[in-house]
Amino acid sequence: MKNILIIGCGLIGSSLLRSIRTKKISKNIFVYEKSKSNISKIKKLKLPCKVINDLRTIVPKMDMIIFCMPMSEYKNTIIKINNYLNNKTIITDIGSSKKETLDLIRTKLKKKISWVSSHPITGSEVSGPEFGSKDLFIKKWCIMIKEKNTNINHFNKIKKFWKKIGSKVVTMNSKKHDAIFSITSHLPHLIAYNLVKSAQDFEKKQKHQIIKYSAGGLRDFSRIAASNEIMWRDIFFDNRENILKAINLFTQNLQAFKKDIKSKNSKTLIKKLVQTKKVRKKIIKLKQDINKPDFGRF
Amino acid sequence: MKNILIIGCGLIGSSLLRSIRTKKISKNIFVYEKSKSNISKIKKLKLPCKVINDLRTIVPKMDMIIFCMPMSEYKNTIIKINNYLNNKTIITDIGSSKKETLDLIRTKLKKKISWVSSHPITGSEVSGPEFGSKDLFIKKWCIMIKEKNTNINHFNKIKKFWKKIGSKVVTMNSKKHDAIFSITSHLPHLIAYNLVKSAQDFEKKQKHQIIKYSAGGLRDFSRIAASNEIMWRDIFFDNRENILKAINLFTQNLQAFKKDIKSKNSKTLIKKLVQTKKVRKKIIKLKQDINKPDFGRF
Repeated sequence: MKNILIIGCGLIGSSLLRSIRTKKISKNIFVYEKSKSNISKIKKLKLPCKVINDLRTIVPKMDMIIFCMPMSEYKNTIIKINNYLNNKTIITDIGSSKKETLDLIRTKLKKKISWVSSHPITGSEVSGPEFGSKDLFIKKWCIMIKEKNTNINHFNKIKKFWKKIGSKVVTMNSKKHDAIFSITSHLPHLIAYNLVKSAQDFEKKQKHQIIKYSAGGLRDFSRIAASNEIMWRDIFFDNRENILKAINLFTQNLQAFKKDIKSKNSKTLIKKLVQTKKVRKKIIKLKQDINKPDFGRF
Repeated sequence: MKNILIIGCGLIGSSLLRSIRTKKISKNIFVYEKSKSNISKIKKLKLPCKVINDLRTIVPKMDMIIFCMPMSEYKNTIIKINNYLNNKTIITDIGSSKKETLDLIRTKLKKKISWVSSHPITGSEVSGPEFGSKDLFIKKWCIMIKEKNTNINHFNKIKKFWKKIGSKVVTMNSKKHDAIFSITSHLPHLIAYNLVKSAQDFEKKQKHQIIKYSAGGLRDFSRIAASNEIMWRDIFFDNRENILKAINLFTQNLQAFKKDIKSKNSKTLIKKLVQTKKVRKKIIKLKQDINKPDFGRF
């Protein structure tokens, strides 16, 4: 490729930038970034790209455009670039939820322009271009969304792109994607936020210092609950139907646990605690984690 | 010291054993262990101790006894050794919850024998003597319980013991201990178990493979939810009054989050998501974790 445009250059955008350069996927990398603070970081870090102000002149020349900003900014950006897009440009995004993005593509994107949505399963609780890494996507899943009307030619090009980046590509439709990630990612994040919020409320009410003793479990949740708030608001809103269902399932199960504890029902409780261990074994077997003991990370 | 007896030699017991030997705290280390599998592991690992069968002859000679088995076994063991205890022996335990232990000490332990309860804030999701480490307690908090009737002489000796082991000792009463750890440790573990249980229910119902995509959040909970089931049943039952209160607080907050998401209340949601980040900053400031990005642990 000759020209790639990355719109939004935070953790993911800047990681893609580094990776594209390392793998020599494109001759030129253009970056459009709204945040002045991020722009000055990109310049300070000397990231290998051209930071642009004017989408109008750049967009028509692009071989590929990747949306890497929060999903709530997709709509305005689509409206802004719509008239400059040409149908040879392959377009993708890295959003964690797909329903509203696909609605936007259907209703706002100019006819004959195609967009194939992606979701690389990677990230971190830290934000910003200074934390990006060229290896962020290596051996990680990248979900590619395929619907009835997906442009197969563009789909194949974008698939090839992710494979070059180092991801393992898997294909599914948006409905399945949003259902799966509501339970493996969106609910866990919400629960982490909620647990930390509850700990804060407890601290305020009971006046005990608790953070000092967070190594017993709370600490592990606080990492997730430090993730970017704009990104997560967008995900919670975008995928709210699935997330609300997941909250209900979670709440039902928690009420059952509460009952077991209140009545000291050892048999039922032990059965559940043993059963949940199996998930851990599966995760390790599927090489999604390691089984090295974690003695407090020091 | 000349003689120390460790009752229960799993992860914590075997770590203490290794640490006591490394720091040359006692000439002899005796181990009493019910599990045949653990005994054969101890022998295979050549851990520096004498495995004993008969508590009757050993207990009277001990300078120190440390209970390291699940809390549900305390009662029977106290009854078993009560008549062989002498009031010079210092006794402690490492249980994660204190209410029922202190009740047992008050009602079951022979008069004039004192027991000062401890809780080292460390551990792992793995169990068994093969995972123990001499460094498990280094620079970790160890809570020592002090009540009105605590034997100060024994308290000071046990405090000295934990300091030699490498822990940072902090003192509080059992009521405060159980309240704090209900929110920093017991609720997080219950929530992790509950989240993994919900993911399992979802997988069964929806027939989607989800474990493969657990890197987006679920994975981090599965680690905690793989902890020893006997230990955690005992904690949930022992500290149930505080835990039930914590569940109620958590459930209220989750219902509020649900409402925010359902109504797309951006302002309230963002405010909460920003607020929870502060806990992470405090944790890092208090050196309870590091702020290095965690890109999937590979």
